[in-house]
Amino acid sequence: MSTFGSLFRVTTYGESHCASVGAIIDGCPPGLELSPQDIQVQLSRRRPGQSNLTTPRDEKDLVHVQSGIEQGVTLGTPIGLLVKNEDQRPKDYSETDLYPRPSHADYTYLEKFGVKASSGGGRSSARETIGRVAAGAIAEKYLKQVFGIEIVAFVSSVGKIHLPSNIAPPSLAEVDGDEDNDDVADALTPEFRQLLATITREEVDKHPTRCPHLATAERMTKRIIRAKESMDSIGGTVTCVIRNVPSGLGEPVFDKFEAKLAQAMMSIPATKAFEVGSGFRGTEVPGSKHNDAFIVKDGKLGTSTNWSGGIQGGITNGEDIYFRIGFKSPATISQAQHTAQYNGTPGTLAARGRHDPCVVPRAVPIVETMAAIVVMDQLLIQNSRKTAAGLLPPITTLPPTMVMPSH
Amino acid sequence: MSTFGSLFRVTTYGESHCASVGAIIDGCPPGLELSPQDIQVQLSRRRPGQSNLTTPRDEKDLVHVQSGIEQGVTLGTPIGLLVKNEDQRPKDYSETDLYPRPSHADYTYLEKFGVKASSGGGRSSARETIGRVAAGAIAEKYLKQVFGIEIVAFVSSVGKIHLPSNIAPPSLAEVDGDEDNDDVADALTPEFRQLLATITREEVDKHPTRCPHLATAERMTKRIIRAKESMDSIGGTVTCVIRNVPSGLGEPVFDKFEAKLAQAMMSIPATKAFEVGSGFRGTEVPGSKHNDAFIVKDGKLGTSTNWSGGIQGGITNGEDIYFRIGFKSPATISQAQHTAQYNGTPGTLAARGRHDPCVVPRAVPIVETMAAIVVMDQLLIQNSRKTAAGLLPPITTLPPTMVMPSH
Amino acid sequence: MSTFGSLFRVTTYGESHCASVGAIIDGCPPGLELSPQDIQVQLSRRRPGQSNLTTPRDEKDLVHVQSGIEQGVTLGTPIGLLVKNEDQRPKDYSETDLYPRPSHADYTYLEKFGVKASSGGGRSSARETIGRVAAGAIAEKYLKQVFGIEIVAFVSSVGKIHLPSNIAPPSLAEVDGDEDNDDVADALTPEFRQLLATITREEVDKHPTRCPHLATAERMTKRIIRAKESMDSIGGTVTCVIRNVPSGLGEPVFDKFEAKLAQAMMSIPATKAFEVGSGFRGTEVPGSKHNDAFIVKDGKLGTSTNWSGGIQGGITNGEDIYFRIGFKSPATISQAQHTAQYNGTPGTLAARGRHDPCVVPRAVPIVETMAAIVVMDQLLIQNSRKTAAGLLPPITTLPPTMVMPSH
Amino acid sequence: MSTFGSLFRVTTYGESHCASVGAIIDGCPPGLELSPQDIQVQLSRRRPGQSNLTTPRDEKDLVHVQSGIEQGVTLGTPIGLLVKNEDQRPKDYSETDLYPRPSHADYTYLEKFGVKASSGGGRSSARETIGRVAAGAIAEKYLKQVFGIEIVAFVSSVGKIHLPSNIAPPSLAEVDGDEDNDDVADALTPEFRQLLATITREEVDKHPTRCPHLATAERMTKRIIRAKESMDSIGGTVTCVIRNVPSGLGEPVFDKFEAKLAQAMMSIPATKAFEVGSGFRGTEVPGSKHNDAFIVKDGKLGTSTNWSGGIQGGITNGEDIYFRIGFKSPATISQAQHTAQYNGTPGTLAARGRHDPCVVPRAVPIVETMAAIVVMDQLLIQNSRKTAAGLLPPITTLPPTMVMPSH
Repeated sequence: MSTFGSLFRVTTYGESHCASVGAIIDGCPPGLELSPQDIQVQLSRRRPGQSNLTTPRDEKDLVHVQSGIEQGVTLGTPIGLLVKNEDQRPKDYSETDLYPRPSHADYTYLEKFGVKASSGGGRSSARETIGRVAAGAIAEKYLKQVFGIEIVAFVSSVGKIHLPSNIAPPSLAEVDGDEDNDDVADALTPEFRQLLATITREEVDKHPTRCPHLATAERMTKRIIRAKESMDSIGGTVTCVIRNVPSGLGEPVFDKFEAKLAQAMMSIPATKAFEVGSGFRGTEVPGSKHNDAFIVKDGKLGTSTNWSGGIQGGITNGEDIYFRIGFKSPATISQAQHTAQYNGTPGTLAARGRHDPCVVPRAVPIVETMAAIVVMDQLLIQNSRKTAAGLLPPITTLPPTMVMPSH
Repeated sequence: MSTFGSLFRVTTYGESHCASVGAIIDGCPPGLELSPQDIQVQLSRRRPGQSNLTTPRDEKDLVHVQSGIEQGVTLGTPIGLLVKNEDQRPKDYSETDLYPRPSHADYTYLEKFGVKASSGGGRSSARETIGRVAAGAIAEKYLKQVFGIEIVAFVSSVGKIHLPSNIAPPSLAEVDGDEDNDDVADALTPEFRQLLATITREEVDKHPTRCPHLATAERMTKRIIRAKESMDSIGGTVTCVIRNVPSGLGEPVFDKFEAKLAQAMMSIPATKAFEVGSGFRGTEVPGSKHNDAFIVKDGKLGTSTNWSGGIQGGITNGEDIYFRIGFKSPATISQAQHTAQYNGTPGTLAARGRHDPCVVPRAVPIVETMAAIVVMDQLLIQNSRKTAAGLLPPITTLPPTMVMPSH
Repeated sequence: MSTFGSLFRVTTYGESHCASVGAIIDGCPPGLELSPQDIQVQLSRRRPGQSNLTTPRDEKDLVHVQSGIEQGVTLGTPIGLLVKNEDQRPKDYSETDLYPRPSHADYTYLEKFGVKASSGGGRSSARETIGRVAAGAIAEKYLKQVFGIEIVAFVSSVGKIHLPSNIAPPSLAEVDGDEDNDDVADALTPEFRQLLATITREEVDKHPTRCPHLATAERMTKRIIRAKESMDSIGGTVTCVIRNVPSGLGEPVFDKFEAKLAQAMMSIPATKAFEVGSGFRGTEVPGSKHNDAFIVKDGKLGTSTNWSGGIQGGITNGEDIYFRIGFKSPATISQAQHTAQYNGTPGTLAARGRHDPCVVPRAVPIVETMAAIVVMDQLLIQNSRKTAAGLLPPITTLPPTMVMPSH
Repeated sequence: MSTFGSLFRVTTYGESHCASVGAIIDGCPPGLELSPQDIQVQLSRRRPGQSNLTTPRDEKDLVHVQSGIEQGVTLGTPIGLLVKNEDQRPKDYSETDLYPRPSHADYTYLEKFGVKASSGGGRSSARETIGRVAAGAIAEKYLKQVFGIEIVAFVSSVGKIHLPSNIAPPSLAEVDGDEDNDDVADALTPEFRQLLATITREEVDKHPTRCPHLATAERMTKRIIRAKESMDSIGGTVTCVIRNVPSGLGEPVFDKFEAKLAQAMMSIPATKAFEVGSGFRGTEVPGSKHNDAFIVKDGKLGTSTNWSGGIQGGITNGEDIYFRIGFKSPATISQAQHTAQYNGTPGTLAARGRHDPCVVPRAVPIVETMAAIVVMDQLLIQNSRKTAAGLLPPITTLPPTMVMPSH
């Protein structure tokens, strides 16, 4: 339903044409300095109208905090917030409304609910994500301040245009390459790990595509413009890194860190694919090369490689967490489509509305904030366990393998 | 934690060396004919020792039903069940226990819990999946009997050996191919759709690899044997189809059908990647080609293509649901690995235990049963809504676009 | 936390002095005709300033629906709503703020959160209940329209002034009366059952105390006026009946109907006691007199007496559900109290603010709406099971006692 | 359903005549020394056959731990446990099975599930409580060891026989006593508070009734024997105190401490009433007398009286938590009852089975362990918040009333 998280719990509401969209964030730690501007930053990165690559609607998306904060400090009580919809009127009846848009949610919403919002897909609207972004921005503030956790997402591909292979995520499968060749030199490059370790939001935002490699970004721009000009659309991928996450987060077995991360990401509109660490590419690498050997780093165990993507057995190990999400081409396009009406009559659906030809640039803050929500919730759960266990007296009679002190 | 689902709710327990592993299944509809054999079938497909491709331990994994069934019929009350562990003794202390196994959960479990089971990774053991498989087998029985829902998974790749491209899942990304060439003829082939529409578990089980294309299966066998002989391991992918799912399942926004499916799959040990429908490949296909046009099928709206994988806006549309999961190479290998002890001392970890060189053949029933749990839970939730809405009087004053009768 | 319910799920936010209080209602069936006025009715019954028995602040408490409703019909998506706070400024610092109010939540909120709202008790404010009342009003609309379910609460006591014994709830314990006298003639009277069967909100609202027996109501008025004039406060009880609830609601074992009802009621501020059916009095009545014999009513099994209060084994049986809630005397009083400051310094806390001398008249709609939320949620869950079971073929081989057809 | 708790989560299964009853306890802190005997103690206090006051069946109820514990120490993973049913055969068909037992769950279970266990009421069986008691015994171990938390319940009434008024719980309402007399001298006596402060399980167990006042206990014994001999049954109340609970537990607003406590207690079979602190009696005491003034105790704020029962605004304040639960007379009695068959035919239901004439002595450990589960879950949640907030830097710019340091 519309609630995510157990201790840091986000509940959202709102469609495209209602009075507002918003969220209630329950479980934010009390005593956190938090201003509307802390939230606005990510909302503004998400909003349409930022460049000629996105939909021309310029909505301000100003956040209005309703509760849970006083004197600039969180009270620990639920934070209610909302963003007004500029266009609150339900749409007028139109000829095109006889048609469910192909690959959009119009048809499935009607199948599910029996009635539908004037916007068609109801909660599948991109505006629904505003509540999550606001919630995640709050989580980010806490995580950054207390643990120095940094979450940075960037566009890693648009259509067939990918980051150069030396800085690309590992997962680009070979089909029937030399099946006896176990060489993996091209997969998890030092340059890619360096990119993960150092990339900042400022760098990402330097180009409207939010691709951090400028030459590639320029090609992506052209690809998006081509989609726009042909009244078509194109998809892409977003890669995200989370740095400085403490080890020990993630709740076996169903709420493994990567499982909740996958749910969070696959709940973002238009997503079709998720992979963490070596991802699909990892399926092709033998264990002897894929295993991340332990070494000492900063006086603590770390790993020399990071095929695992910072997660082992569903639990974080302290290394950088990285993952990639695939966004399909947007369903709403302006060119004529041969399809059928709700009543089955075949016909042609012509243009309606103006929409993003490619969503990945705007998806970047959505990915980051959803990641922040997952980390925050898992952190609060592990906090609880660790505190509870820490209050117990040490047990001195156990075999050494049960309490092997970690370095 | 160890509970999944809201109305069909599965809770599991158990590690490798404790008395038993098991589950409580709450919310099974009353009045379902259910025998232990219904459950045993999938447990037996999951158990080790089925061929020379898997671990030689031959565990019987017999299910013992504790409650919730009387006279062969479910009561609607929780079904408790368990499978005894053959080897219930905690392992002896060993030199190799000084080392956390690279890329295994030994280290992260210790970081999380501060103590660890003699098995090291505790709940990350493959034996943990027994509870889920049993639970899912119950869901399968209901779904098959009432809706004719069929769930069939198969191995689509081992290492670099994939199904032939004409029957392969669509998502095999091109890197920097001709970026202006939007041709997609190779991606979602009629043969693949035909495979999805007709594949059965009987066909899948004909070969120990559980790959339905025999020539490919033979190559996979060799690849696994090579891994085994070199004391190494190898990963692979499993593709799964769910047929005959009613439209309207999936709870926007955080519990979208694909989001819960992703959580379920990524909670299976050793998974690193998930994609549904066109997946990563869908990011490269323009909207005009990726959109699934509506047509009438069996007197109801369906789609001519199925890039969406049966889900639009997080809700099922009645078409075949298909998805692919990437399993990494198993972390436990017998060859020596240079790594560090818990205390940071560098050293070499030599062989211990015997383990599967490749998990994907045995993962097939795990994928199927987890899928069944997701479908069952979403079905029960939508059941409730549909029944509640159906009791309301029709509203005659609404604009036609709000109640567009679906064909 | 601030969320209640599984399928009909209510999440609230807001303190006394923030911008607004509100709620998100997730899981409302689609296709329900619903106007703001449907919600406003109960908000207006709850608001202060209705008579000289309540706090003189006259707040309008107008509901603003944000989402989930279009053209006067629910979409099935989350309904966001809010009520603005008239006084949104955090209070000024005051001498009395050095003192935690005795028996108020000032101290415990500080212990819990470490910071506190200017209102002191934060979410313990009566204004928090606005969100629930609005949510419950929506549930009431559905339950009334589809099942004819009627929920009516009334004031059954103020201080020591109770309804006359012939129409009083059964639970008034005798202490060491003749312990061998099992006579129960005074306990569950036909007049009381008649009152339950026929009482309406209109009758309840005829007197400002919301006590349906006028002579008693007048005495209650005097008692409240006495409390007000002596700058003191007084408690009371509210009794509630739910009529026409289908049999079969309530989820064993932890979510039994009465268990969720108890949670719901005991989550209302100032509640200290809850009982259902015969309640505490039922502990004194032998089984032979307390058991409700079955009889046929309207062609269906019913019971001749109703000591059970419509619930047996945690599941509704179709009879009237009735229960009673005890509200303590409000903690905030204007007379001087000897107590201690936060820092431990003893002293005298003098008057601050103006408050209800007795909350029970205004508690009536809160009790009703919380009851509606419980019924609605349990109904949706049972709907799901019943629909799922109803799709299974009948099993003809069972022993007759397993499928005993109910009359 | 059959799961309770969010971080300390208990899921139970089992009916009377199935193979076993049991539970999975998820979220137990790792590193706790825990033996089966720690669990057995409370199971043995709960089991039948302890005296001639209870059912003569002597079931051993030995716990079998399945997982989650190794070398006598908890791993932090789910603890599976079970107790075998001695009589595992479904009962034979009998004439009396044509009748739903009056006030038992036979009828409502059939209404809910459509099929029923041979035991009739399925999960309403007292054997279902075994899983909870085992789970709660684990929580008790932790709470005692780390916080010195003591939970002691005792029988405070059987039928009309109550503890002497000087040591009785406060809530015994006066009906139309002198309504202008606000004297409360009889209500919350120092002797009762002393009893709460000092009572131990050893003292409670000295008498088979588990009433700590011997003269009263003897009268209770006679009352129970009278019920038994007349083939009848009788109810009673259990009072429980929880000592040394840290302040700050309880999650506003729906999961207030007393709300979850009420749910937990009202989920125990045969309960009809719950009150905390002054309970129903508190409704009659003016605020000026009911308010608990703050004083300094052990260098910390405490209260001079404790009408609140240790909870204010839904949050614990560090004082003793006490509450009372009403258990109705057991529905299963051996004397003939005029009632109707499932098919509506009137008739007489004669004796079947042997059952407790009074459940309160055996309810004592059930109440204690359910209370322990509530405390444990709320403690883990507050642990998490406190740890999270404690990691934030102090904010020096806030008005003094927001961060009033507690003494």
